[in-house]
Amino acid sequence: MMTIKRIPNKIYLSEEQLPKQWYNLRADMKQLPDPMLNPKTMQPICEADLYPIFCKELARQELDEKTAYIDIPEPVREMYRMYRPSPLVRAYQLEKKLDTPAHIYYKFEGNNTSGSHKLNSAVAQAYYAKQEGITSLTTETGAGQWGTALAEACAFFGLDLCVYMVRTSYEQKPFRKNIIKTFGATVIPSPSNTTKAGQRILAAHPDTGGSLGCAISEAVEKAVTTPNCRYALGSVLNQVLLHQSVIGLETKTAMEMIDEYPDVMIGCAGGGSNLGGLIAPFMRDKILGKANPRIVAVEPTSCPSLTRGKYAYDYCDTGKMTPLAKMYTLGYDFMPSANHAGGLRYHGMSPIVSKLYHDGYIEAVSYEQTKVFEAAVLFAKTETILPAPESSHAIRCAIDEALKCRESGEKKTIVFGLTGTGYFDLAAYDSFLNGTMTDSIPTDEQLQKSFDTLPKV
Amino acid sequence: MMTIKRIPNKIYLSEEQLPKQWYNLRADMKQLPDPMLNPKTMQPICEADLYPIFCKELARQELDEKTAYIDIPEPVREMYRMYRPSPLVRAYQLEKKLDTPAHIYYKFEGNNTSGSHKLNSAVAQAYYAKQEGITSLTTETGAGQWGTALAEACAFFGLDLCVYMVRTSYEQKPFRKNIIKTFGATVIPSPSNTTKAGQRILAAHPDTGGSLGCAISEAVEKAVTTPNCRYALGSVLNQVLLHQSVIGLETKTAMEMIDEYPDVMIGCAGGGSNLGGLIAPFMRDKILGKANPRIVAVEPTSCPSLTRGKYAYDYCDTGKMTPLAKMYTLGYDFMPSANHAGGLRYHGMSPIVSKLYHDGYIEAVSYEQTKVFEAAVLFAKTETILPAPESSHAIRCAIDEALKCRESGEKKTIVFGLTGTGYFDLAAYDSFLNGTMTDSIPTDEQLQKSFDTLPKV
Repeated sequence: MMTIKRIPNKIYLSEEQLPKQWYNLRADMKQLPDPMLNPKTMQPICEADLYPIFCKELARQELDEKTAYIDIPEPVREMYRMYRPSPLVRAYQLEKKLDTPAHIYYKFEGNNTSGSHKLNSAVAQAYYAKQEGITSLTTETGAGQWGTALAEACAFFGLDLCVYMVRTSYEQKPFRKNIIKTFGATVIPSPSNTTKAGQRILAAHPDTGGSLGCAISEAVEKAVTTPNCRYALGSVLNQVLLHQSVIGLETKTAMEMIDEYPDVMIGCAGGGSNLGGLIAPFMRDKILGKANPRIVAVEPTSCPSLTRGKYAYDYCDTGKMTPLAKMYTLGYDFMPSANHAGGLRYHGMSPIVSKLYHDGYIEAVSYEQTKVFEAAVLFAKTETILPAPESSHAIRCAIDEALKCRESGEKKTIVFGLTGTGYFDLAAYDSFLNGTMTDSIPTDEQLQKSFDTLPKV
Repeated sequence: MMTIKRIPNKIYLSEEQLPKQWYNLRADMKQLPDPMLNPKTMQPICEADLYPIFCKELARQELDEKTAYIDIPEPVREMYRMYRPSPLVRAYQLEKKLDTPAHIYYKFEGNNTSGSHKLNSAVAQAYYAKQEGITSLTTETGAGQWGTALAEACAFFGLDLCVYMVRTSYEQKPFRKNIIKTFGATVIPSPSNTTKAGQRILAAHPDTGGSLGCAISEAVEKAVTTPNCRYALGSVLNQVLLHQSVIGLETKTAMEMIDEYPDVMIGCAGGGSNLGGLIAPFMRDKILGKANPRIVAVEPTSCPSLTRGKYAYDYCDTGKMTPLAKMYTLGYDFMPSANHAGGLRYHGMSPIVSKLYHDGYIEAVSYEQTKVFEAAVLFAKTETILPAPESSHAIRCAIDEALKCRESGEKKTIVFGLTGTGYFDLAAYDSFLNGTMTDSIPTDEQLQKSFDTLPKV
């Protein structure tokens, strides 16, 4: 006689089940993303073009479209073991509250000090840099999770780090910079006078609160002008999605252990790193015709790259220092209005996610932030985790999908990425709770003005 | 042939291994703590004396000195399963950094939104109140973890909650009150004009930043003057140590799984809830002569109840509303100087921990906060978790014990309680990093003045 055991609240893999390889989705894509272009020549970039910015192995990974599985180096796994495998959680209490027949799961990446999934790629990027004799890294950070993650990884591997932090975050979230400093990194509010790109932006917009695009320009400039220094980016890049595949691989193993398969997978999408990582092995199934899960990208209405952007070549930064990528974009100097999900305030989208969306493998929706925080508070009260505003976009969508199941009676399996915690976002929660939070949607005219600046390729 | 497997970084018990009963150490103590006294009659209290303050089952648990194992109700376990079992972590990186032969383990209670172990008792207290038809609770909070924990538990079980928050914390940690409000509770800075106790304290000390003792008085007064309302306390009480035994029970099971037994157990001690819970089943071994681990309580030099206090009957609160307890105390109106470990700024100590210390089962040490933060930063950089200032007292002591092992070559097993995370303590980290943090030690004269106010019993 078989005993059907209750699926536990949290499915933890053992340390032995921690993936030994990352999965490179490009190796299985039927149509590849268009190549990145060298901004000087407008020709497809080669590895050597990237060497001033990235260390060699990361340049190689960035352009590798053939190797499906890439070994995770043992020192990277050593640091992964300090906070991974992360739990796949069954949202029993949320299901009960929504009175839905759906099974809701979330892969919770917030139980580490960086507060998000960003650490997964930070560890890899710091490791390879150290391995190749690089002595310092630069990066940018918006909400602060990526900066914290890279600071942790640099402390672990023994690298110096200089973080350009979007000025509004620097001022609104002083604690984020303190935590980055605790791990030994330097934090500079961006735009700053420490780079030519920053000086130019400050001259044009003296009162600007900065943007991710600006901060990237500064960090890249600093990296290429400092000896033995490289730049690290927390999202958008192919290498980042590769490293983040650890999220999806663990999720897949955990789902197999409980004998479930997602009908719907949901992830918030800023640069696409979490969504791309979470879905990677499931997208493989979809591309190979083994399964057909719906995949939904969720973004804020204030920065709607997928839902209202153009699929075009664009710069990844405001200062036009980076290679051009073919992606859904709002234009490289689009300045999103204030929104508390700092990690989703980016004008572009990962070329891989963009291509998959363009080819119909992914759907996209956008939500106003008041709707998102409504979901965040409901989630906190039922699941007893305070979610990050970014992650709460996925929660909003998962709740809506579960409510549809209540209407239809369908017992769907919904899986979403709970990318992080909101402990540094309590000013945002406060503004929601006291009713002062507002929503903002760019007008068609605003977007058109921004599209007009797209480079002619 | 046997393969000796590497002990994993994190030892997670399965959901089935979550304890089904709490362990009541009093049932095995050779000498019991002296009874609490009714402040009006100075006679030992009975259950009924406690009914205005606590719900009946909690009053019963408070006085139960006979029942060694008490069932954890299923709804409490249901909420426990959302964040427990918590991991026992092998501090491999810290060991490597210290170059010590010691094995260092920490039981990590910080991976839940309250940020500490406090949730373990909050869940139980909220559950029993709900069960008995109580509609609201009051409590106090210092650093804010307990207030957050009780707010989470009240949201889960559907109770109203009013939190009196020590005014200095309310002002220094605005985010803590926001998170408490997110879970639906009301937060009032203490001392306040909402109670007679608060009014009296404000009249005497108009500029006071408050203290836990004051806030307790206000919360108790509010509970006894509000219909269908009870009071909840996050430490000191026997019932709290009972609920916190879940920490020690899980730790013991995990240690058995890896075939280790602690030579030294270390916990920070404010009111004693974490230390008392962590050590409970190991203290049982010690009392019954089955093993002889050293047990070390760690406190701040600024509030040294065990190391410099008197073992005497005293009030648990500044307003003299609570029963008197025989404990190590600095005097009920001792106002500790500013220290960033808000959770350790309490004048007294759990009667159980006090008795064990008095009878020689427990050692105690105190550290200045700059030494504590030095350890905290080292821990963050190696173990990649940002610890709470309170927990960092235990880290400091564990590091010192491990360094002694480096000298002696002893391969001791050191286990400490990592009670929580420091995400809301970054102003403290900042003051440490920029060199403005100061230490403070009360003078003998200050302490004597405070001892002179102890009640004559």
